[in-house]
Amino acid sequence: MGGFSRRDLLKAALLASTALAIPSMAFANDVPQPLPSWNNGATKASIVDFVTAVTTEGSPDYVAPADRIATFDNDGTLWGEQPMYVQLAFALDRVKAVAANHPEWKNTEPFKSIIAGDLAGMAAAGEKGLMEVLGATHSGMSGEDFTEIATQWIGSARHPKTGRLYTEMVFQPMLELIDYLDANGFKVFIVSGGGMEFMRPWTDRVYGIPSERVVGSSIKAQYDDSGTSPVINRLAEVDFIDDGAGKPVGIYNHIGKRPIAAFGNSDGDFQMLEWTTSGPGRRFGLIVHHDDAAREYAYDRQSHFGRLDRALDAAPQRGWNVVSMKDDWKTIYPQ
Amino acid sequence: MGGFSRRDLLKAALLASTALAIPSMAFANDVPQPLPSWNNGATKASIVDFVTAVTTEGSPDYVAPADRIATFDNDGTLWGEQPMYVQLAFALDRVKAVAANHPEWKNTEPFKSIIAGDLAGMAAAGEKGLMEVLGATHSGMSGEDFTEIATQWIGSARHPKTGRLYTEMVFQPMLELIDYLDANGFKVFIVSGGGMEFMRPWTDRVYGIPSERVVGSSIKAQYDDSGTSPVINRLAEVDFIDDGAGKPVGIYNHIGKRPIAAFGNSDGDFQMLEWTTSGPGRRFGLIVHHDDAAREYAYDRQSHFGRLDRALDAAPQRGWNVVSMKDDWKTIYPQ
Repeated sequence: MGGFSRRDLLKAALLASTALAIPSMAFANDVPQPLPSWNNGATKASIVDFVTAVTTEGSPDYVAPADRIATFDNDGTLWGEQPMYVQLAFALDRVKAVAANHPEWKNTEPFKSIIAGDLAGMAAAGEKGLMEVLGATHSGMSGEDFTEIATQWIGSARHPKTGRLYTEMVFQPMLELIDYLDANGFKVFIVSGGGMEFMRPWTDRVYGIPSERVVGSSIKAQYDDSGTSPVINRLAEVDFIDDGAGKPVGIYNHIGKRPIAAFGNSDGDFQMLEWTTSGPGRRFGLIVHHDDAAREYAYDRQSHFGRLDRALDAAPQRGWNVVSMKDDWKTIYPQ
Repeated sequence: MGGFSRRDLLKAALLASTALAIPSMAFANDVPQPLPSWNNGATKASIVDFVTAVTTEGSPDYVAPADRIATFDNDGTLWGEQPMYVQLAFALDRVKAVAANHPEWKNTEPFKSIIAGDLAGMAAAGEKGLMEVLGATHSGMSGEDFTEIATQWIGSARHPKTGRLYTEMVFQPMLELIDYLDANGFKVFIVSGGGMEFMRPWTDRVYGIPSERVVGSSIKAQYDDSGTSPVINRLAEVDFIDDGAGKPVGIYNHIGKRPIAAFGNSDGDFQMLEWTTSGPGRRFGLIVHHDDAAREYAYDRQSHFGRLDRALDAAPQRGWNVVSMKDDWKTIYPQ
């Protein structure tokens, strides 16, 4: 039995109560209400209404479980992205961690600035500098070594403001939303602009989303069996950018089906929401709006990482739900 | 309840008998023995021994369900590949189906030969000609249109020798092997040199393998929201060849974990088997050997599509199992 997760057992209990005609009264008091960290209001009602419609047999909106695909952006949607993307914090820490092996970095930007803790100097190197940093920290090792490095880092790195582990800065209401969809037969995927291999080591533990359901940006990889033991080498060459118009393509490539529900927080998610909600039948789109300066961060439109203009403007006419973190969520982080 | 599959209910019954302490005697007589179409012998014993070892808690070989990744080649491993790859038969049929829209093909090879039913003439155009045929039949439409085309074709096309639907020419012992692994908590994937989008429309129905667990070769795709409704366009440009050394890379990209079991039938599967079985802990590799001229086809080494030299030579020293279709399988196709 130890091989089964809590979720398996819950599912078994739910199924058993139906399929094996065990009186379900014994379980009724134990079944939690969905979305406890969401305030009652239009957004929560809209979520429950959608899930009920597509899972109720005989409903005109019914969707078979195999087609209940839900895709979530990660940065800013499932966890925080301020004051910088977590993966960038990882890259900066890695530069410092391996600087001793790169004496040339003392005189090379943006490495020199990063080592000195000068973020403005780093930013001055622009996108080209950023790509050099990502290349130096994300390639040149085997896939399994990178997984080990990312696993070690995520297990100990802490947010500069809250002092929490980054994995403790996931959004509790979104965890409940993932669980609610999962319990209703959805297949939940991450579709992120972030690096696929940076997320995969911890998404199962933190979100209950296994590695094969994590879609993201990636660099090229190459199989090498010339040594004593074969390895997959990570090359310093971009393979795919899973952002903007890349997200529907990433979905097509990894999932092979159009989602019926999509969740994002920026214009980088626009096309994913558009692709999802323009399909036939009942569809669901949602934007997490960071408007809670007291409990998290408030940033908007031009000030948003990657902007939020187009998606916010389109939301009313396209029927996308806009979550106010301030008003819709009772709590931000897990206890 | 209608949303749950037969497999869900079986799993629920198995879980319920453990987790809810329902006496399991009621089910004992109904539990089928695994692999009924496999003759008792070394290969079957080796499969059962491996699965038992990695699923038995407390066993030194125990593997948690999340890491029980099994990858199967498709052509020649799960279904037949003679007298030609099924996907090539699809492409040739598509050339004929759309020839009326391409009057220029009457004078252009290899299309002219294909329309005339002259396979030798087609073959004379070599790999370049083949790529033109694949481009003309697999790109230039939306992803959803291609899915519809492939679905229609696979629902009616029949094998030239047996007259069966191609989906009825899957190998019954391999279906049982997939079910056996699935029932033991494995996640089963296809990792094929064939086109991902050609397989995905039917793998769930035929193998019980959903689209997101199908890894294969692919062409580039592009999101286009310039029209009234957004589409994903299939471009006439190769994106990834999931064969040979590409298979471990495809696995890394789509699954993100090294498999513990891999199943193939040619040298195109060599690196997948090598990558899988060179990992730490208990591993399993298997090669389907087509040696049954009476019930299927007999072909070997140089005569094999893509050859089988290297994998057969390596099998003994690497501990890979070689299935004799003639001796190990009671039956080839489903009834």
